Amino acid sequence: MNLLIRDILAVLPGGAEVCSVYICDGVIASTSTVPKGFKADKIIFGNGKMLIPGLVNAHTHAAMSIFRSCADDLLFNEWLFGKIQPMEDLLCGDDCYWGIMLAALEMLRTGTTSFIDMYYFTDESARAILESGIRCVFSRGIAGDADVVESKLRTAIDEIDRWSGNGSGVASADGSGSAGTNGSGSVGADGSNYSTGDGSIASGNSSIALGDGSNIANDKGRLTFMLGPHAPYTCDEGFQREVAAEAARRGIPINTHLAESLAEIDTIKERYGCTPIELVDRNGLLTETTVAAHCVHLSDSDIRLLAERGVNVVTNPVSNLKLANGIAPVMKMREAGVKLALGTDSAASNNSLNMFRDLAMLALIHKGANHDALAITAREGFEMATVHGARAMGHDDLGEIRQGAIADLAVIDLDRPNMQPLNDPVAALAYSANGSEVETVMVGGDVLMENGEFLTIDKDRVYHEISAICKRLGM
Amino acid sequence: MNLLIRDILAVLPGGAEVCSVYICDGVIASTSTVPKGFKADKIIFGNGKMLIPGLVNAHTHAAMSIFRSCADDLLFNEWLFGKIQPMEDLLCGDDCYWGIMLAALEMLRTGTTSFIDMYYFTDESARAILESGIRCVFSRGIAGDADVVESKLRTAIDEIDRWSGNGSGVASADGSGSAGTNGSGSVGADGSNYSTGDGSIASGNSSIALGDGSNIANDKGRLTFMLGPHAPYTCDEGFQREVAAEAARRGIPINTHLAESLAEIDTIKERYGCTPIELVDRNGLLTETTVAAHCVHLSDSDIRLLAERGVNVVTNPVSNLKLANGIAPVMKMREAGVKLALGTDSAASNNSLNMFRDLAMLALIHKGANHDALAITAREGFEMATVHGARAMGHDDLGEIRQGAIADLAVIDLDRPNMQPLNDPVAALAYSANGSEVETVMVGGDVLMENGEFLTIDKDRVYHEISAICKRLGM
Repeated sequence: MNLLIRDILAVLPGGAEVCSVYICDGVIASTSTVPKGFKADKIIFGNGKMLIPGLVNAHTHAAMSIFRSCADDLLFNEWLFGKIQPMEDLLCGDDCYWGIMLAALEMLRTGTTSFIDMYYFTDESARAILESGIRCVFSRGIAGDADVVESKLRTAIDEIDRWSGNGSGVASADGSGSAGTNGSGSVGADGSNYSTGDGSIASGNSSIALGDGSNIANDKGRLTFMLGPHAPYTCDEGFQREVAAEAARRGIPINTHLAESLAEIDTIKERYGCTPIELVDRNGLLTETTVAAHCVHLSDSDIRLLAERGVNVVTNPVSNLKLANGIAPVMKMREAGVKLALGTDSAASNNSLNMFRDLAMLALIHKGANHDALAITAREGFEMATVHGARAMGHDDLGEIRQGAIADLAVIDLDRPNMQPLNDPVAALAYSANGSEVETVMVGGDVLMENGEFLTIDKDRVYHEISAICKRLGM
Repeated sequence: MNLLIRDILAVLPGGAEVCSVYICDGVIASTSTVPKGFKADKIIFGNGKMLIPGLVNAHTHAAMSIFRSCADDLLFNEWLFGKIQPMEDLLCGDDCYWGIMLAALEMLRTGTTSFIDMYYFTDESARAILESGIRCVFSRGIAGDADVVESKLRTAIDEIDRWSGNGSGVASADGSGSAGTNGSGSVGADGSNYSTGDGSIASGNSSIALGDGSNIANDKGRLTFMLGPHAPYTCDEGFQREVAAEAARRGIPINTHLAESLAEIDTIKERYGCTPIELVDRNGLLTETTVAAHCVHLSDSDIRLLAERGVNVVTNPVSNLKLANGIAPVMKMREAGVKLALGTDSAASNNSLNMFRDLAMLALIHKGANHDALAITAREGFEMATVHGARAMGHDDLGEIRQGAIADLAVIDLDRPNMQPLNDPVAALAYSANGSEVETVMVGGDVLMENGEFLTIDKDRVYHEISAICKRLGM
């Protein structure tokens, strides 16, 4: 399948320029000359449009879109324990399937083509992710003490094996072979293989027989995995150590929450006499493939540690404000050389999965909070929302428009008052766009939304099912 | 002209409920029972929609939309003196006409139906405002010392007389007779009348002969005026006193900038030994009709003074962050009883006129900055963006959906992933909407945008002219 995006203002790594983008089998073959023998099966005309790499939402809990606007303007404990958790206790796998479908609709609608997720009900989540066509690194949230770590890890690893393309935990396909960079390698590095190979659920061939008879294969490698120890205050030290050891054995990256609230800092200080960063580091969880969300409350030595270990920190400016957790020291982290990506967190605490809003917030808030108009430029924010997010996912061939990169792309309509005059395209993306300008989106060269129409998801069905779930949960 | 909006989820002062809204001659006649003899000339069906009062952008410089994305990520002095002011020096009246047209497109597109403006070229601005159909309180920005105040005031007053419906400075029409509440009254309270009555420019009958032969009347009273002393650091004490005296004589409200930057605080302290608030207060500029933008850097006694004088403070969270001025003490002002409205400031420092983004920023940032998840609820923010903005404009019959209010309204499409599930409608507006959900907008019952199509403005012509202006200005 060859796709041509002709004469479009494209945001390339070196700056925005008008070019044509040639896509062969889901990969960008050229942004300048016509590749040899190229014949377009489909052409998108770029006049009046802008092309950007699809945005990477590097921290969310997509299925929680079900809980949008159901618990706002509340103190944290009331929000979590009074509202969200009681509803979560009632969730079933089907609910998560529909929650992820709703999230995929919103993310695709606003130009996000991939996300790093942590939640439960892996099988139904995987099904929704693969059906929608969006790209995802999924991690089952696990927590507890040393007594339960083995069974929890076993569940998580079984799921990873089941849904990975070749029995390895971190699937690598899309023709690029690059998922699992950053040293993440593939599951089974110790020779073990949890797959059963019988072609049904719990099989190693990445297909799953579903109730509706459909057969969903992870054959494009869009769904990869991390291990998701929830947070230092929900996983004890034994638990953390076992997860870290298993992750190292199998080369599976870690996805976790760190230093989100002051309460967490106090709890960890009281329990262990150190900071959350120090704690998880001494238990082996901080590596260069680790993804750590939030990191709002950090000491200077915490920041140095995050930089030294090469951790991918995902900042979540909207969620951190909404839950009153504060403003992360992003400037200090940047100066220290910490790898930084951007995420929305869930729609229960954002209340949107619109990366354009978090990008604007990121580029704005650190200027105001630090009294520094040069803090986080539009370009820096945009790179955090794209290529640095892709790196956090374990991809070095994603998040940029360049030869050899996977064609996860979004076409932006410039026929909008807020995008006129355009002047500086990247500034317009960071400070003027609201996300609705995205009109066409592709993942691995597959067009998932075209002129605002969703091609892989029946949105009315999704709204209907979500409404029924909300009714059942008593919202 | 009778308009019926049938069976729509309307955000009423007491909460959201499904109702039908009956509009007669631009005023809401009922939100419950059918008014006697009512026959609809037009019906808007509300299924799957939400109805809100049009948003009020209580502080902007609309024509500066020309400068969008042309000077970002710069230190304040470089931004203003290196970039914006040199281009402003090249502006002509026609440029401002097109700049306001572009701003009107963006504001209508995102549900803003009225705005408080400060800029230059009143005649061309007035023409654009009236042609677009949007509602505006316009103030010519004036500044200088006591030597120039008389001529500057004369120019401003002449323009006000020329463009007001009946020779009075604060026009009052729309069938409501309420513009100029808050004690603002009409110009000419001292019996003077600057109008010449000859029916051309500089006439008192509010029509103007334009180059293209059109005749634009302010016969619906949508364009009213304030006096615009720019700021305490650009107007000396004599200037301030004269403007205050003239405003009091004529009952014209004041629109000004106050306490925006730390540099301003230092300058005023050095020059006058007091705060900007204390300075303008001792010169008579603080009254209950005064509109004061920014107010970022305030002492506790400044806050008490703003509350005592009944000043309408307009907070501009996005602009204050982008120019690195900081975060206004909105919580303290609210506690002290200061009247609070919301504005975007100009697209040169925002870079959008999308009130939904400023509403989200307002409701989010004070939670994070104050570590208080209850700081500025969605409902409080929404009221600042609607009814309190209307009060700042001098309207007590605007910004709410209730019997007797002017029908400035926006219809929101709920068929969007980010508005599903809706759960709490006002929370969804503040935290989930991005502004693009607005599909139909009316001002005084006149539909100006319908299903996303602009009915009074030729957007392609606007884009074309703006592009030519940018080229001429060397952007």
